[in-house]
Amino acid sequence: METVKENKIFSRQFYLLPGECNSEQEMPLWLLVNRIIEVATLHADSLGIGYKRLSRDNQAWVLSRLAIEMERYPKVGENYTLSTWIESFNRHFSERNIEILDENDHPIGYARTIWSVIDTTSRTSCDISALCSMADNVAEKECPIEHQSKIKNVDRQQESRYTFRYSDIDFNRHVNTVRYICAILNMFPLQFYDAYSIHRFEITFIKETYIDTEVIICIDDSNPTDCKAEISDGDTPLCRARIVFSPRNKDNRQ
Amino acid sequence: METVKENKIFSRQFYLLPGECNSEQEMPLWLLVNRIIEVATLHADSLGIGYKRLSRDNQAWVLSRLAIEMERYPKVGENYTLSTWIESFNRHFSERNIEILDENDHPIGYARTIWSVIDTTSRTSCDISALCSMADNVAEKECPIEHQSKIKNVDRQQESRYTFRYSDIDFNRHVNTVRYICAILNMFPLQFYDAYSIHRFEITFIKETYIDTEVIICIDDSNPTDCKAEISDGDTPLCRARIVFSPRNKDNRQ
Repeated sequence: METVKENKIFSRQFYLLPGECNSEQEMPLWLLVNRIIEVATLHADSLGIGYKRLSRDNQAWVLSRLAIEMERYPKVGENYTLSTWIESFNRHFSERNIEILDENDHPIGYARTIWSVIDTTSRTSCDISALCSMADNVAEKECPIEHQSKIKNVDRQQESRYTFRYSDIDFNRHVNTVRYICAILNMFPLQFYDAYSIHRFEITFIKETYIDTEVIICIDDSNPTDCKAEISDGDTPLCRARIVFSPRNKDNRQ
Repeated sequence: METVKENKIFSRQFYLLPGECNSEQEMPLWLLVNRIIEVATLHADSLGIGYKRLSRDNQAWVLSRLAIEMERYPKVGENYTLSTWIESFNRHFSERNIEILDENDHPIGYARTIWSVIDTTSRTSCDISALCSMADNVAEKECPIEHQSKIKNVDRQQESRYTFRYSDIDFNRHVNTVRYICAILNMFPLQFYDAYSIHRFEITFIKETYIDTEVIICIDDSNPTDCKAEISDGDTPLCRARIVFSPRNKDNRQ
């Protein structure tokens, strides 16, 4: 669980516990997203631009976009490492990348994330160019996965409703990032996950959602291995996602 | 995040990240239960009776009962420690306790857990008296909270339905412990959690539940600060819980 820092890259090692695994005895996407948020938070803390510093000015980091591409996921009982670095930033957004490594330090996946800072009282976006420690900490490391695509025209091939409750809400009192992702993944049956793994996942957060909101979850699976998803409150889109599935290699199954 | 082991007690320190907090900016009960399972798993691993050893014989540890009593919960940005030890065991069950400490090593809560071992193919209970490293590792430390009560006669004062989906399922392919707890906590409104915190929580798991099961969640709040809950599949009870709330001290609010 040691934390190392060198070359403007922040790394942390984890161990995949049985109780954390999905039905395929692998790291679930929701845990991976939590781990990405964890290393991003700890790296920002170490640069003096983390939660504690920002909350003094009633500001908070908000994850606005996320693209993950995995060659494979860590398996039960396996050690894995997340390394993160700042790729770039402008007034409105900071681009932070993540490399996921297996226990032999071989990369097994990458993520691209886009963060903004909001004023927690007015809920409006803040200028982040003043967070000057970022300028000194942009790293040159390459992230070999494509930037996020623009997700639009989600046809309502499948539709379901869900009401967000207490355990879906985070410390900002809006729906937790990971609970949107679970709501989308829950639209696919277990048998599908037994046959396919999530090769690439993209999500764009459009609007905050509050407790007791009944949302509509739509899946466009006209291409069954490259699906689009939208969560909306009536006609108001809250987030849109893209899920690219790849067939599981039977030899790799546990 | 250092791991220490002395006097048959296994301890691990954690840091409460903002992204992990509930709407009260504290450690949520679901995260505490995950942390309890985490230290129990790691301690069993260190004694050679963990997941890897048992899975060779198609066996797995299953949490059967849990009682938690908290004076207060860790707050955002706070370090906290979980210490765990074996209190006793017999052929069928192992009793494992947990102490939760704040960053000054002051106890802020305790948990009592009861575990059994099942055969993962037949789904039947196994004799655990053969796991002899347990006999050498029973610790004398005191756990000052009461043993779990017998929860019965849950009147259906409030009732709701929920269907367990993909993200609710764990690596044993049944509903994850924590997702039952979330389903119960989701029956109370946000305003209630703003005014009350969970002082004591008890849960008894009766029967495994599988994906796509629509369950009935009942709350008996005839005493609004000492509630009972039952999750059932038709007339078949799956788990029963008790939740004792205490009014929040306004001075302690963030």
